[in-house]
Amino acid sequence: MKTLTIGLTQSAAVSDPAANLDTAERLTREAASKGAQIICLQEMCSTLYFCRREDPDHFDLAEAIPGNTTARFASVAKELGVVIVLPLFEERATGLYHNTAAVLDADGRYLGKYRKMHIPEDPGFHEKFYFTPGDLGYRVWETACGKIGVLICWDQWYPEAARLTAMQGANVLFYPTAIGWLAEEPASIGASQHNAWETVQRGHAVANGCYVAAANRIGTEGDTKFWGQSFVANPYGEIIGKAPVDQESSLIVDLDLEQLQEFRRIWPFFRDRRIDSYAPITQRWLDSQS
Amino acid sequence: MKTLTIGLTQSAAVSDPAANLDTAERLTREAASKGAQIICLQEMCSTLYFCRREDPDHFDLAEAIPGNTTARFASVAKELGVVIVLPLFEERATGLYHNTAAVLDADGRYLGKYRKMHIPEDPGFHEKFYFTPGDLGYRVWETACGKIGVLICWDQWYPEAARLTAMQGANVLFYPTAIGWLAEEPASIGASQHNAWETVQRGHAVANGCYVAAANRIGTEGDTKFWGQSFVANPYGEIIGKAPVDQESSLIVDLDLEQLQEFRRIWPFFRDRRIDSYAPITQRWLDSQS
Repeated sequence: MKTLTIGLTQSAAVSDPAANLDTAERLTREAASKGAQIICLQEMCSTLYFCRREDPDHFDLAEAIPGNTTARFASVAKELGVVIVLPLFEERATGLYHNTAAVLDADGRYLGKYRKMHIPEDPGFHEKFYFTPGDLGYRVWETACGKIGVLICWDQWYPEAARLTAMQGANVLFYPTAIGWLAEEPASIGASQHNAWETVQRGHAVANGCYVAAANRIGTEGDTKFWGQSFVANPYGEIIGKAPVDQESSLIVDLDLEQLQEFRRIWPFFRDRRIDSYAPITQRWLDSQS
Repeated sequence: MKTLTIGLTQSAAVSDPAANLDTAERLTREAASKGAQIICLQEMCSTLYFCRREDPDHFDLAEAIPGNTTARFASVAKELGVVIVLPLFEERATGLYHNTAAVLDADGRYLGKYRKMHIPEDPGFHEKFYFTPGDLGYRVWETACGKIGVLICWDQWYPEAARLTAMQGANVLFYPTAIGWLAEEPASIGASQHNAWETVQRGHAVANGCYVAAANRIGTEGDTKFWGQSFVANPYGEIIGKAPVDQESSLIVDLDLEQLQEFRRIWPFFRDRRIDSYAPITQRWLDSQS
């Protein structure tokens, strides 16, 4: 397989989970009809971004993974013959919840799940209240369309997460996301923040010689305007597909797997990693030395 | 200090080391006269990029660090009251050489040296023949103008190197560089490669909430056309200063240290690092798991 076609969906959420899942299924079918072989939905695709404030009632929105929703989308995956990355709010036990993504293979098999490792806690993004940090580590799945890795939103800012996933052989890192601007912030900061978000992920693509694909939501929820612009970057860090800022979309992008191979042969970064020198990366911070 | 002014020099090299050092001193003085407080010279500023082929005679170009050249530039640093990052070809012992950068403080003191950790070996870049990989680790120096880190060229592609330097408190990561296009490669690949080079470093700036400053050489040596374009990126990954592709320059850029603080407070990435999960980064590669 020389070309892999992927689809990223982005949509605005409403309060009714059933309606959001109907939208997710509709966009999944649309992406498949346009040729997507792997389809990644946005972070917590069944709900509003309820982390804007801390409210224990929102735990009602969580569900088992695997469970009813993964079963529904597994049927869709099998019917369409596509791989689906399905991000949901996971209830593991009462009082124990994760921000998770299930991976469903093109034959409808549930391959496993990734639990978001890095959890933010910022004004308007109170995730540490809701989500226990993931304890499954960084994962790659051998799907019908090759090896893929999945990370979620705040993970985007951590080169360690991208590296540890790419080191398992992922050709594509998928990042379901929910990120946007706060209404109170000036537009200039918003533009810089969006630039930073794209840039750091494009950097992961370069450093690891792989494709990076981020699916972000759109719409305004309270004070937060999600910035959409789901995108795919190639190993050179070039954006090769991008969705609009405010329109529901199924973005279809062809990935050239020969380009990935060419990149890694010309710039064999993994060959020269100084693994003898990286141990202090497990420290929180390092004192300066002279 | 709210603003830090830095200078990056880029020039074409000739075969006579004395002439190259004269150019380096001239550009250092020019940068200081334009207000630079820290000045970073290009990788191996005293020589041609001799790694285009393997020739033991080139070991004649190496010198002790500290030594005559660091003493000369220490005098310049003291006279001008500027910090200088001085990259040279280091002879440690006969048959043992490093690609090194010395750091000279604004009072002329020799603060120490960094030895390039990641060594490439590619067509036209035969560095594994010349340079023993660095054994001093990643370093930060408390200069008269704040904490800075120094990494060299191929290190640019490694998020681990940027992270381990930033974790020591560097506000700026300086990258003396010698990178360019091979004449035999098509222009489209060259543009993509240059984009990748900028992008991965801009990503380091974002991931670590710091400034990144790369000083590259210009000119054509054999089949290699160095691409200049020394640049500085802010913590948002935005390029805030850039030199031309083919002109000798001393690029002067003001760094806003309050912006650095603001960035890190809004996005406190270091707070949420999952240091319990990063240990496998000391592995070469990881088998996939299901």
